[in-house]
Amino acid sequence: MPRIHFHQQLEQLKDKLLAMAALSQQAVEYAVDAYLERDKRLCTFVRDNETAINLAQRDVDEMAYDLLAKEQPMAIDLRFILSVIKINGDLERIGDQSMSIALRAEEILRVPKAALPVDIAAMGTHASDMIRRAVQALIEADALLAESVREMDDDIDHMNRAAHVDLIQVMQQSPDTSLQALNAVITARNLERIADHATNIAEDVIFWVRGADVRHQLAMAE
Amino acid sequence: MPRIHFHQQLEQLKDKLLAMAALSQQAVEYAVDAYLERDKRLCTFVRDNETAINLAQRDVDEMAYDLLAKEQPMAIDLRFILSVIKINGDLERIGDQSMSIALRAEEILRVPKAALPVDIAAMGTHASDMIRRAVQALIEADALLAESVREMDDDIDHMNRAAHVDLIQVMQQSPDTSLQALNAVITARNLERIADHATNIAEDVIFWVRGADVRHQLAMAE
Repeated sequence: MPRIHFHQQLEQLKDKLLAMAALSQQAVEYAVDAYLERDKRLCTFVRDNETAINLAQRDVDEMAYDLLAKEQPMAIDLRFILSVIKINGDLERIGDQSMSIALRAEEILRVPKAALPVDIAAMGTHASDMIRRAVQALIEADALLAESVREMDDDIDHMNRAAHVDLIQVMQQSPDTSLQALNAVITARNLERIADHATNIAEDVIFWVRGADVRHQLAMAE
Repeated sequence: MPRIHFHQQLEQLKDKLLAMAALSQQAVEYAVDAYLERDKRLCTFVRDNETAINLAQRDVDEMAYDLLAKEQPMAIDLRFILSVIKINGDLERIGDQSMSIALRAEEILRVPKAALPVDIAAMGTHASDMIRRAVQALIEADALLAESVREMDDDIDHMNRAAHVDLIQVMQQSPDTSLQALNAVITARNLERIADHATNIAEDVIFWVRGADVRHQLAMAE
């Protein structure tokens, strides 16, 4: 019964991807905590975690390639494996962005804390929620849930643009906190990018479940 | 002769990808020019170009998926198509980063020009050279040339880190040019990310030609 064996392998591939997703999700949360709590130990943890993420990414990719080469899957199974490869890439980039936040957190450790007009905690929670929801949509093959992730992306774009404008004012008016303000700008951008990757994941879930490429629909409609 | 037909289709897929690469390359060069020359028309061009890039990406992806579904390719052909899908994703992200540079260029149009300790022109040329070389490696199936792209990545990382440190000093000492300095920091980061994507493309060429996954070798060696 080779097909039963094949579907067991697909389940195994999904499990590997979920383990990868857990690492990426953890990276975001720890990086944001490191930034907010000014915690050097957590910065180091996020750096170490990046190596684990890169290894997990390789592992998922190799299994996906093997299945494509040996099983020559068709239709929904093919779409699933292609989605896994893409989602895997987005999860790895979420790890990169988390690493970048940890580097910014390390840089501000050596200067005093500054009150800044940006809610990094809220942006972090929003980005995390988007990843969690996208992963849940993957687990449950739920295209509607995946669509709700796409809708959440506008909010964090808005938060990021507001932070950019408000933090420039801080730089101009309180140059002694420029370092803190700059790192807040970059961290807000990183979180906005993380949310973009969560959106990509949600779109790949929709592609898998519905078989339609939903990316750039707005661009198409223009 | 279905296999001959299949190989014609692979050539066609490669041509589509090269057209996509030309658009991304152009986006980087025009975005950097827009930034350096403070040219609003070029900013608008880069924005419009992004829609073309998104459409081209869809087109490449759809053809790659069709070939996987209908031809069930094996070995080197399978690796080629998977590499095309990944390279396509990196080219689209190069378009995103170029768009981000164009937005920064638009923002500084409304403030006076400032002399800043960062050579955006040199970084832009370096990033462009990396993309050009990665694409040439793809055209010629040249893994050695692709390896040289990976080596070029260190230089731009170094330029970006130096720019970050030097521009913070400008912000602290000349708050009236904070807006210009901040946008220079972000543009330098965008160019460094563009170089990362060129490196990813080079690694995918190596994977295709040699059949080995070269990503994260350093991480593996640690």
